[in-house]
This record gives sequence, C-alpha cells and structure tokens, in this order.
Amino acid sequence: MDYYGEKIGSLIEELASLPGIGIKSAQRLAFHIVNMPKEKAHALAAAITDARDNVHYCRECYTLTDRDICPICANDKRNHRQIMVVENVRDLAAYEKTGEYEGVYHVLHGAISPMLGIGPEDIKLKELMQRLQSEVDEVIIATNSGLEGETTAMYISRLIKPTGIKVTRIASGIPVGGDLENTDEVTLKRALDARTEI
Amino acid sequence: MDYYGEKIGSLIEELASLPGIGIKSAQRLAFHIVNMPKEKAHALAAAITDARDNVHYCRECYTLTDRDICPICANDKRNHRQIMVVENVRDLAAYEKTGEYEGVYHVLHGAISPMLGIGPEDIKLKELMQRLQSEVDEVIIATNSGLEGETTAMYISRLIKPTGIKVTRIASGIPVGGDLENTDEVTLKRALDARTEI
Repeated sequence: MDYYGEKIGSLIEELASLPGIGIKSAQRLAFHIVNMPKEKAHALAAAITDARDNVHYCRECYTLTDRDICPICANDKRNHRQIMVVENVRDLAAYEKTGEYEGVYHVLHGAISPMLGIGPEDIKLKELMQRLQSEVDEVIIATNSGLEGETTAMYISRLIKPTGIKVTRIASGIPVGGDLENTDEVTLKRALDARTEI
Repeated sequence: MDYYGEKIGSLIEELASLPGIGIKSAQRLAFHIVNMPKEKAHALAAAITDARDNVHYCRECYTLTDRDICPICANDKRNHRQIMVVENVRDLAAYEKTGEYEGVYHVLHGAISPMLGIGPEDIKLKELMQRLQSEVDEVIIATNSGLEGETTAMYISRLIKPTGIKVTRIASGIPVGGDLENTDEVTLKRALDARTEI
C-alpha cells in the first residue's frame, strides 16, 4: 500500500483492525478522514482517546461509564431491589430504550461458553453474588436466548436459588411483528409452551 | 444515549458520522475501542490526526501523499510522458495494484456531474492542462464508465485534442456502471491493453 504513503497506509491498517471493517471500508474511511475538516478529524481522535482513557466499569453494575457509579445506579428513583442480568452493555441499552424497566442492571460481560472456553469465573458472576448480599427482591435473567445465554441463565438460577431470592427469566417467543412462517422450530415450540390465556 | 455516559456517547456520535457507519456499527466499534489495549486506542487516534495533518495533494499529480511529491511522481523509472487521468486516489491504487502501468497519474478528485452541480472547474482539470505544457506523449483517460465518468472523458478529450497530444480511453471490459475500485486486476489490465484513441 505504499502508493498511498506511510501516513495513509498506517491509518488504513489501524482502521482495518477494527471489527467489521474490511480493507475496502478502511480505505474509504481513511480517504474520508484526510478530507475531513481538521477540527472534525481531531474531534474523532480525541473522542477515541478520551473514551478509552476515562471509561471503566461502574462499581455497582459493571456497565461502562465515565463516572464512578453509572447514571442508572446513581438514580434514586430506580428500584435497586430488582436487578436485570444482561450479557453486555448493548443489551442493557436495548432494555433502556424500551423505557419500561425501572430496576437496575448487572452486566456480565460475556456468557458461559464451554466451546469458547469461557467459564463462570470469566464473567462478572462473583460480583453479582456479592451484590446479592444487600437486599434484593428479584433477579431477572435477560441473557440472550442462544445456547450460551441459556446455559448462563441456568447456571445463575441454580447459584441464586439457595439464597431464596426470586429468579426470573425474560420470556422467549415469536417477536412482535414476526411471521410464524419465518420463525425457527425451537422458538415456535417455546411460544406454544409459554402460551397464556386471553 | 445517556445511559452510556457522555464519553461513550460522543465517541458513538463521532463514529456514526463517518460514511457507511450506522448507529449500531458505531456502538459496536465504540465498545470495542473502550475495551482495546490503551496503546492500540492511542495508536488509532494518532493515526487519524497524523494522516489528517500531514497528508495533502502531490504537487504534480494531486494524489494524496505525506510528501511534497508522491512516490510515483518522484520515481524516475516511471514514464512521465504518459499520464493516466483517474477520478480519485482509490482508482489510482486499483491500477497500481495491477503492476502493469508504468506511466504517471493525474487525480481529478471527482467527475463532471451536472446533476450534482459538479462542473469542470470543480475538479483538477485546470491543473491537468497546466501539466500538458511540458512534454507529454499520451493522456489515458481512466475515469469510471458510468455517466459522469464518460461525460468527464469526453470533456477532457475535447479539451486536449487541439494540443495534438494523443488521448486514449481505457477500453470497456469494465462492466458499464461499475467502479474501477471494485474491478478485478485482470479486467483492469485488459482494459488498459485495449485502450483506444478518442
């Protein structure tokens, strides 16, 4: 790539190392960046270092935040006795967007996956159990509904049961607006099993 | 997006303003970046500012370079009497990758497009005509084969004809409506070999 010169070459290389960005997208982005107004390019670079240097885990729920305690955990109006367990920060955001959940969260940063060699000690499970020392009414397990998510849900459920704290799992079923025709058999079966009277 | 906190929020915003990066990709990238080793994140930021601050047009051919004159124009072994006119730097790179072209380039940074309001004065055409004051044997027009590219090719051809310099157009073989950037090297080479005078 030395027909681009060293500076563009190394920018392309850095961009291409990001997930989901191939060499062509990296080239397009690099040329966009060198043609950007200078202050825009500097703002992008500053946002990267600023986020990397100042973002860490919330001391309570382990979401990513630039404060000591994240805005959700610091909010007195939220129900701190109800904890929703999610695999990652994007899942937390997905539930926050609904505006329907008033409890707090616990971010595992992963799911148990024997195939990938990820065990219970590799995710924030010990930290969850520590939080349960204080008064908690309910733990809602909102891990994904794939193999890893289900394994993790089962594991957590068995871990918490002896403490007497209520453990629930978000329902799986047909997504709203989804077609039965395009829904996989496992989901169809689950939706049938979990049917409710109307 | 304030459940992510300000730092991640502004990083997501900056990333989402890049072309081809939607809000979901921006989120994924942002979380990747805050989890990167610190030196990797800083290297990415540095590559951005470094490229933006130090990359400019080559004084000769108007490609992007971090030197005064780009490595191609500075290369005495290239044929400086043969100039290939391309729309952008990615197209130059596409021909360089073939390893088949030994002349030099001229990067227009665009194509004439009455629809988008881009006229001959908005691309590096005046600069091309200035280069033709020195001794040039042939101008190879390698603009894309879409409407804008063909319009630009015709315009340049008519402009240069009176000077007596040979003007050629790369052959079709490149699918009509396609971009040079996404064309395989064999097709690019064939198109070069079969160029015709226009």
